[in-house]
Amino acid sequence: MARPPSKALSPQASPAAAQHRSLVPAGMATLLPHAAQQVRYLEATLLACLVRWGYQEIIPPTFEYLDVLSAGLEPELIDKSYTLVDRTSGRMLLLRPDATAQIARMVAMGMLGPKTPLRLCYRTTVFRYEPEHAGREREIFQVGAELIGADEVATDGEILALLLDCLTHLGLLEFKVSLGHVGFFKALLGKSGLSAEGRKRAEQAAARKDLPRLEEILGEERVSRRAAKAILETPGLYGGEEVLERGARLAGRDRELRGALDRLTQVYRLLCVGGMKEHLLLDLGELRGFDYYDGVLFDVFTDGLGCELGGGGRYNHLVGRFGRELPSTGFALDVDRLFRTLDRVQDGPSSSQADVLMAAPPHHAERLFEVARTLRETGVRVVQQMMPGSGSSGIPPVLAEGRRLAVSAVVLLGVTRLASDEALLVSRVSQEPGRSQPPKPVQRRVKIKDLAAALQKS
Amino acid sequence: MARPPSKALSPQASPAAAQHRSLVPAGMATLLPHAAQQVRYLEATLLACLVRWGYQEIIPPTFEYLDVLSAGLEPELIDKSYTLVDRTSGRMLLLRPDATAQIARMVAMGMLGPKTPLRLCYRTTVFRYEPEHAGREREIFQVGAELIGADEVATDGEILALLLDCLTHLGLLEFKVSLGHVGFFKALLGKSGLSAEGRKRAEQAAARKDLPRLEEILGEERVSRRAAKAILETPGLYGGEEVLERGARLAGRDRELRGALDRLTQVYRLLCVGGMKEHLLLDLGELRGFDYYDGVLFDVFTDGLGCELGGGGRYNHLVGRFGRELPSTGFALDVDRLFRTLDRVQDGPSSSQADVLMAAPPHHAERLFEVARTLRETGVRVVQQMMPGSGSSGIPPVLAEGRRLAVSAVVLLGVTRLASDEALLVSRVSQEPGRSQPPKPVQRRVKIKDLAAALQKS
Repeated sequence: MARPPSKALSPQASPAAAQHRSLVPAGMATLLPHAAQQVRYLEATLLACLVRWGYQEIIPPTFEYLDVLSAGLEPELIDKSYTLVDRTSGRMLLLRPDATAQIARMVAMGMLGPKTPLRLCYRTTVFRYEPEHAGREREIFQVGAELIGADEVATDGEILALLLDCLTHLGLLEFKVSLGHVGFFKALLGKSGLSAEGRKRAEQAAARKDLPRLEEILGEERVSRRAAKAILETPGLYGGEEVLERGARLAGRDRELRGALDRLTQVYRLLCVGGMKEHLLLDLGELRGFDYYDGVLFDVFTDGLGCELGGGGRYNHLVGRFGRELPSTGFALDVDRLFRTLDRVQDGPSSSQADVLMAAPPHHAERLFEVARTLRETGVRVVQQMMPGSGSSGIPPVLAEGRRLAVSAVVLLGVTRLASDEALLVSRVSQEPGRSQPPKPVQRRVKIKDLAAALQKS
Repeated sequence: MARPPSKALSPQASPAAAQHRSLVPAGMATLLPHAAQQVRYLEATLLACLVRWGYQEIIPPTFEYLDVLSAGLEPELIDKSYTLVDRTSGRMLLLRPDATAQIARMVAMGMLGPKTPLRLCYRTTVFRYEPEHAGREREIFQVGAELIGADEVATDGEILALLLDCLTHLGLLEFKVSLGHVGFFKALLGKSGLSAEGRKRAEQAAARKDLPRLEEILGEERVSRRAAKAILETPGLYGGEEVLERGARLAGRDRELRGALDRLTQVYRLLCVGGMKEHLLLDLGELRGFDYYDGVLFDVFTDGLGCELGGGGRYNHLVGRFGRELPSTGFALDVDRLFRTLDRVQDGPSSSQADVLMAAPPHHAERLFEVARTLRETGVRVVQQMMPGSGSSGIPPVLAEGRRLAVSAVVLLGVTRLASDEALLVSRVSQEPGRSQPPKPVQRRVKIKDLAAALQKS
C-alpha cells in the first residue's frame, strides 16, 4: 500500500485543523496505569483458573486471510471487521474479529495434533467496527476457553462450571448465567414456514426480546396462529426450573424441540447438583450474535452493567467448516467490562507506583544501586534517584517526590551525619488512604543490613 | 471499506486453488501451548522486574492515526507499517509499528499528568512488514520501559541497570550490551561536509559495519582524507575501556565529540561501579535503526542468535515532536527472540497439560465436580472427564487419556468396589522425562479427604 502524500504526514502543517481532529482513533483502548494493572490482574486470575482445569493457552496471530477465515464468520461480523490488502500476497487480510473462529481454523489445520479432546484457552484482543457511542468497544480484551472434540452433556457442564469458577475467583458475587438451547427457538422457526430471511430477522428480534417487531415479522409472512403463538411465547420463557415445564408443553411430541429441551435439562440438572443453581437462569429465548452456535448456549450478566460480561456455547460444526468435524463448546469473557464491573465491587491490588523511594548523592551511586537491588530481591518495589548533594537541603525535594509516588517510605543514603553502613529511613511520607490529616514524616537512622526488616515494621 | 465479492469469501468454491495458497499470513505469530507458556512466563518475569523498579504498565491502543503518530516515526518505518482507511473518519490508520512513539504521543498529550519523571512500561506487539525470510518477524512481541522527563547521567544508568536486571532475572547468562553514543558518529559526519542524504547512507552503512560501502559513500562526496579516516575508524572502535581513549584521540578538542564521549564515559563508569562491567561492550559506532535517538544508546546481543535481543537509548526530543519537550530514555526487548534463546539455555516451567486426570461415571457427576474443585483449590491442575460406566472396563481408556495429557496421576471416583468416601489413585501413569522404560502404574485406594496429601507423596 502506498504511503499517503507527505502533507498528511505532518500534523504541524495545519495546527488549526489538527485541533479539530481527534488524536486517537475512536473506540480504541488506552489503558493508563490503574486500569492496565487491574486488567492484567483480571487476565492473570482468569488464566490461573483456566490452567488449573488443564486448559492450555495458545496465542493466535493478529491477522488472518479473509478468504480463509470467512468460512467461520457470518457476513455481519465480516462487515464489522478491519480489513486491508496484504502487500506481499495481494490478498485481503482481516484483523481477528473473533478468536473462536481462529482456533477452529488452527485445530482443523492440524496445528494442535490429531488427538482430542483439546482444552485450549487464550487472552487476546478482537477488533470490530462498532457504533461510536459504544465507547472503548472496537478493541475488545477477551479471555476465553474452548473444549474441542467432545459432545457429552458433561462437557457442556464442564465449560459452564469452568466459567462459574472463573467468575467466582475474580470476586464477582452478583452475576447470572442465562442458559438456553439455540435449537429450541430455531426448531420453532423452522416449523413455522418462515423464509430463511424471515427466520434470521425473527432471531434478531427475539435476541433483543423485541416482541412487537417479532409479531410484525411473523405477520408479514402469514405464519399460522398456532406457530406464531409458540414463537412469541418463547422469548418470555426465562426463570427457574418451571421454564422447562412450560417448554415441554410447547414442544409437545416434536422430536427436535424435545431433543433441545432434554439436553438443556440434563445440563441444568448437572450444574444444580454441582451447587451452581443460584447463578443460573433458564432462558429458552437465549440467542447469541453468532450463527455458529448450535446447542446449549449462555450469556453472563451482572446488575448495573447494561451489557453481557461474556458468553458462549456449543458449536458442533464450526471446526467442520474448516475441514474437520469436531463437536465443541467454549466461552469468552470481556475483560474490560469485568474491570468496569469489579471496579465498583472491590479495590484490587495496590495502585501506588512503588513502596520505597531511595536516593543518594552522586558519589554514593554504587551503594544506591546495590542497596536498591538487595531490597528489590526481597520483593519491595523501589524507585531510585540521585540527589544533587549530600547536604540536608536536598532532602525536602526527595520527600516531595516520595509523596507524588505515594510511597510509604523514603530511604536516603550518603547524606550528612550518616555512617557509611547507615541509611536515613523516613516513614509516614504519604497520606494513608482514608485518613484526612496530612502525615508527619518520622525520620530515623537504621543500619543498611536491617533496612528490609525496619521497612516491614514501619 | 466494502466487503470483497462473495466468491472470495468461500474457500470451498475452489479447493484446488486454495491448496496452493498459504492459510496463514506470512510472518504472523501462532504460538502453540509450549511456546505460548514460555512467552507468557518471560513476559511475566520481565514485568515483575520492571514493577520492582517502580515502572507502571500502560496498554496503548493497537491503532493510531497516521497523521498524528507520523510526527514520531521516520519515513522508513512508516513504509513498513500496516495501514488502512478508518471507516468512521476516512482518515488513515496504522497499526502500532513502535511503542515508544505511541507513549511519547500519550505523554505529550498529557494523558499521564503534568508531573515528571514518569516511569512506564509495556508488553505489546508491534507490526511491521519485514522481508519474508525473516520468519515470525511481522508481529513482534515486545516488553519495554521508558523513563520520561529526566536527563541525568544516573537515569541513563538506571535504564541500563534495569535492562541488565531484567535479563539476569530471565536466567540469561551469556549476553553483552553494546553501549555507544549516537552523538559521536553523527558529529563526525556533521563535520565532514557530507550532504544530509550522504550522512543518512553513511549511518546505515556504519550500523551494518559495512566499511567498503562507507568508504564508497565518503568518496562519492569527496570527503577530506582526515575526516574520512576518523569516520572509517569509528565503526571499529568497540571493546573495553581502551575504546574511550581511542575515541578521545579522535575527538581532539572538538566540543561536540568530547561532550558525547564524556557522557558515555560517565554512564560506563557508573555501571562499572554498579558491578555490571562484565556485560558491557563499548561501541562508538553503535547506531540503531531509529533516528529519534540522540544520546547514549545500546543493543543487547547473545551468542548463537544472529540478531539483537533488544535495545534502546536516549531520545531527548521525541516527546517534543508531539508538543512537549521532555528528555527521556528507554528500551525494548523482543520476547520471541528471548524465547528462542532461552529455549536452548533452560527448560522453563513444566509443559505438561495437567497434574491429575479425574474421572467418574455419570451418576457420580456431583462428586466429580466437588472433589476436582477442592483439589484445584490446593493449586493442583485437574482435568475432569466422565467415564461411560462404573465397571473396570472403563479404566484403561482413562489411563490412556492420562498418558496423552502427561499427568502424573489418575484419580477415579465411583468405580466398582470403592466405598463412597474413597477414590482409586493410579500413580506412575506417564513416562517420566529421562526414563526409557515404560512406567508401571500403581493403583491404591485412598480416602477422598486424604487425596491431596496422597498426591503430594506419589
